[in-house]
Amino acid sequence: MKAGEHKLIRRIGKALTPKGGSWLALGAGDDAALLTPRPGYDTILTCDWFLEGIHFLPGKHPADSIGWKCLARALSDIAAMGGQPRCFLLSLALPGKLALKEKGMGTVWLDEFLRGLRRAARRFGCVLAGGDTTQRREILINVTVVGEVLAGRALQRSGAKAGDRIFVSGTLGEAEVGLQKLRQGTRVSPGNDRALRKHLYPEPRVELGRWLAGRKLASSTMDLSDGLSSDLPRLCAASGVGARIEATEIPSPKLPRTGSKRFGALGLALNGGDDYELLFTVRASKVRRMPRSFRGVALTEIGEVTREQGIVIVQQDGTTKPLFPRGWDPFR
Amino acid sequence: MKAGEHKLIRRIGKALTPKGGSWLALGAGDDAALLTPRPGYDTILTCDWFLEGIHFLPGKHPADSIGWKCLARALSDIAAMGGQPRCFLLSLALPGKLALKEKGMGTVWLDEFLRGLRRAARRFGCVLAGGDTTQRREILINVTVVGEVLAGRALQRSGAKAGDRIFVSGTLGEAEVGLQKLRQGTRVSPGNDRALRKHLYPEPRVELGRWLAGRKLASSTMDLSDGLSSDLPRLCAASGVGARIEATEIPSPKLPRTGSKRFGALGLALNGGDDYELLFTVRASKVRRMPRSFRGVALTEIGEVTREQGIVIVQQDGTTKPLFPRGWDPFR
Repeated sequence: MKAGEHKLIRRIGKALTPKGGSWLALGAGDDAALLTPRPGYDTILTCDWFLEGIHFLPGKHPADSIGWKCLARALSDIAAMGGQPRCFLLSLALPGKLALKEKGMGTVWLDEFLRGLRRAARRFGCVLAGGDTTQRREILINVTVVGEVLAGRALQRSGAKAGDRIFVSGTLGEAEVGLQKLRQGTRVSPGNDRALRKHLYPEPRVELGRWLAGRKLASSTMDLSDGLSSDLPRLCAASGVGARIEATEIPSPKLPRTGSKRFGALGLALNGGDDYELLFTVRASKVRRMPRSFRGVALTEIGEVTREQGIVIVQQDGTTKPLFPRGWDPFR
Repeated sequence: MKAGEHKLIRRIGKALTPKGGSWLALGAGDDAALLTPRPGYDTILTCDWFLEGIHFLPGKHPADSIGWKCLARALSDIAAMGGQPRCFLLSLALPGKLALKEKGMGTVWLDEFLRGLRRAARRFGCVLAGGDTTQRREILINVTVVGEVLAGRALQRSGAKAGDRIFVSGTLGEAEVGLQKLRQGTRVSPGNDRALRKHLYPEPRVELGRWLAGRKLASSTMDLSDGLSSDLPRLCAASGVGARIEATEIPSPKLPRTGSKRFGALGLALNGGDDYELLFTVRASKVRRMPRSFRGVALTEIGEVTREQGIVIVQQDGTTKPLFPRGWDPFR
């Protein structure tokens, strides 16, 4: 059996299967993965596309960033549910030269991709359980992540009530600044550049999500993947409420000296995608239990849930205006 | 919120969400799906690509067949584990004109696709739990299916032992005949043509798999997706055994009067893909408990597991020759 697909699957398995087994009863290699759920826990399921030309640019994004980010994106949905990641399925379609070449660029790309993926899998305790591979002109990735959460404790989008305070983690719009730098080909290594690092190697807020769920602090939660102006209306729609946010409170990024001025710092914070921070609401009675940061990640109160539907933003001069979704939408 | 992606997700949800809720604690619409595992059951996880140009030809395959088959393929892996399907995640990338047009061809394609998908979801009791959508020049589909099986009862590839008898369900190579007819554009409706129907609307052997698992009849099982000559070596490799199969026993398709003669009937049965039948082994002591068919699907003994590794086929004239994998491999 020298079939090409089998060879690729073996390489993926070798790179990603932890030594000494795992909690999986049966991993990659059989028809499907088999796992034993823990009693008292609900299972969380999510999947995400990660496609060449849409979610990454192969000429710009390092292969290890593609590996890290395809898993990190899906893990962010587990974080938004307050869950603990357990395992993932990797669907990978690759040009033959990237998948199988034993020497030269092919191997380098796949090795780097798997290195980034392995780093993310280890960092967030998420084990490869299976997947599917095929050959394709372009790189196509789809990742399914399975997580678990104590039964009845999952964070949802639908629990916000009028009077709840609205919080976000971290700095918004930073990943968008990083993307602009990457597009311009600015020669900074991600190690020295916070925004670039955030774009290439986002850190899903898994620990924060688990903490919010464990302490019953959040009345509703979602992750910010498309930008606050697009995601906040989704949370409000799920909860049947509106929101008023304060422009001056929104944690905005430092602007680079050069680069597109399509948005100012506030515009980037409102409309930039790929942040993978958490957006959540807290009952007014619990607000004083909220620290200013959690394990080094800022937690910022940016506004209030309102009975009136629709989202308004209070500007620096005190006037208000409606906030329209200007974040990422593949079909716009 | 008139965002295009949101609209598409709503249409998918409307077409596929059963009325009156489901066993899902939380379905499509939140960050992730949430489900409560049944005590005493293991969870089965599998995912499958279904890509334009590789797995289907948009000019040839009706949209409802694409919808049916993308789920049926993944369900076949659940069948091979002896599992009961529970829910699925749909990742869909579509050209904007297929996804959103309110009148004309666009809507027709998506409606037909969702109709085929819904038929398969109902037929096999598998509920939409979530997914991801984006826009793309070509149609890309990835389906994750979650199933369950009584703890410890999952069928695996690795249990075959020397002396076990080898069985297959149904007729092999029939889907390949159907594909040839489809490529030639033969004007037969699938309703009247068994091979075409098998190619367009394969029936994963979910009930057979559950029966084999429930009765503890199979020592090893996998599904035939790439062709017997490619899949049997995989089962043998997982079990550390070889096999000897009888050419005259292999249930081969009726050949169409016209069409490519690349393979004869036996060649099609050995190398044709997309059959989604089950390949399984049964201990010699249990063979007499095997019926000749199960709910209308033939169960045929085609050979024996051997201690010597490698696969040999006994030909019509009694001579043997090694069987090489000539089934589907995207990287060949």
